[in-house]
Amino acid sequence: MSLLVVGSVAFDDVETPFGRRERVLGGSASYFSLSASRFTSVKVVAVVGEDFGPEQRNVFSGRPIDLSGLVTKSGKSFHWKGAYGWDLNEAKTLDTQLNVFADFKPELPEAHRDCPYLFLGNIDPTLQLEVVKQMKQRPRWIALDTMNYWIRGASEALARTLKEVDILLVNDAEVRELTREHSLVKAYRRVRELGPKVLVVKRGEYGVALFTEQGIFGAPAYPLEEVFDPTGAGDTFAGGFLGQLARLERMDPAALKHATLAGSVMASFTVERFSTERLETLTDEELKARMASFSDMIRVEAL
Amino acid sequence: MSLLVVGSVAFDDVETPFGRRERVLGGSASYFSLSASRFTSVKVVAVVGEDFGPEQRNVFSGRPIDLSGLVTKSGKSFHWKGAYGWDLNEAKTLDTQLNVFADFKPELPEAHRDCPYLFLGNIDPTLQLEVVKQMKQRPRWIALDTMNYWIRGASEALARTLKEVDILLVNDAEVRELTREHSLVKAYRRVRELGPKVLVVKRGEYGVALFTEQGIFGAPAYPLEEVFDPTGAGDTFAGGFLGQLARLERMDPAALKHATLAGSVMASFTVERFSTERLETLTDEELKARMASFSDMIRVEAL
Repeated sequence: MSLLVVGSVAFDDVETPFGRRERVLGGSASYFSLSASRFTSVKVVAVVGEDFGPEQRNVFSGRPIDLSGLVTKSGKSFHWKGAYGWDLNEAKTLDTQLNVFADFKPELPEAHRDCPYLFLGNIDPTLQLEVVKQMKQRPRWIALDTMNYWIRGASEALARTLKEVDILLVNDAEVRELTREHSLVKAYRRVRELGPKVLVVKRGEYGVALFTEQGIFGAPAYPLEEVFDPTGAGDTFAGGFLGQLARLERMDPAALKHATLAGSVMASFTVERFSTERLETLTDEELKARMASFSDMIRVEAL
Repeated sequence: MSLLVVGSVAFDDVETPFGRRERVLGGSASYFSLSASRFTSVKVVAVVGEDFGPEQRNVFSGRPIDLSGLVTKSGKSFHWKGAYGWDLNEAKTLDTQLNVFADFKPELPEAHRDCPYLFLGNIDPTLQLEVVKQMKQRPRWIALDTMNYWIRGASEALARTLKEVDILLVNDAEVRELTREHSLVKAYRRVRELGPKVLVVKRGEYGVALFTEQGIFGAPAYPLEEVFDPTGAGDTFAGGFLGQLARLERMDPAALKHATLAGSVMASFTVERFSTERLETLTDEELKARMASFSDMIRVEAL
């Protein structure tokens, strides 16, 4: 069942202790759709500039990714420049050129307005709500990502948008700032009041905590020899998580747990190389093998 | 099967955002033995001063904890004073009075020298090795905790001691400093070269990562409404982990995973109150219920 994502498609300049890349493919909708498309078909709504050419488009081709909602505007694409130190947990943003993204007003093509599943990538919460209003009927679920910039600067718009949302995907610091609660157990209770029934807390190298009305689930990150470039890990997680959830057509705790594993495994591939390089080369066999190895890893056998 | 612990028994002054306590029971061997004794019998080797009275001794009575190796010396007991901010992950040490602990030379009573299981709490690695040498035969396993102070200041003694050790229990920063590897996968490989076959990385609110030759296991921390006082969480974890391992009389991956759950659940109780208060009141029913709830929490049901 088709999953609609609204977010950014961008160029990134990235520097890590292991090297640097310039003008590589980035943006939340890029990582998200490449990840989710391993599990379900995806429709992308985003904006790019005239500098977004066949080389970039080719990355998405041959996959169940519909780019008919990817609008090209005159000007340049969103361009982000960031760097990581040896502690790869947080990027330092060196430069942000919004370019055509500055005037992004998502307009859903007619064929996109009855998608059963919707992911609102991290953009202005007012725009996120506009997207929801454009849907012909309410999707079976709506998931949302946001960041401290909106939690601080657009809290009322975010509160209005969250009322429409079923699944909130954020990191530790974001959910703590949003709810003003340090304990994630208490933070989830506040999130429930704000709207979402499911809270997914992304904790980087420490894994994921999942809160539902039926209980809590925790999973570690898939352990890697080397994290090369953490850019896109959160969006890749969201893609794997929501792609798997859409594929399963269920939202019970068992489905949410399997979705968590899918998201964690996809994210583990992304960080092994720069940009979307690893998502591009990833084979079905590699994905299947790591999913099995991760399931084994967290399973506690009876004695 | 009896588990021998060598460590500290102390008085603590603790301040957290939720309150403060003075001259409460503390020390690695206190938390460890109260925790491990839920699973197996424990023998404590430590030193206290004349200020350690019946009130403190009573905490251990009525439990399978043998205090015949707890030596009283003239002078005062080890006294630690620390405080936590809202980020409860790290204590700020305000004062350390070693007192009788400064001259601690563990001397094992004859009856303790054939314990099949040994935990070397965080003391000078030279003393830890002395304890190993006093054993009549090599225990079935030896576990060790250490800290950055020894990793930096007594690296050669620590390396000699680690050769005798089967299970190393440390936190993220400690294992990274010990091995000079950021990736825990690589750090484990280095730990294997140093001696221990099993590496347990304690990650506070993020849970535990367990590395064995057969594979890796990760478990989240048991989610709590409120963390009240994190003092002793690591030693309580070690007690639950090693107590369960001694009880099971196995060291295969399944046993190590169950031991991880036991340690995590015990630590979750400790942090709910000051000092050893919660370990003192904990009932078998409460322990059993939380173990079951934690197992449910991390289980991924087939779809």
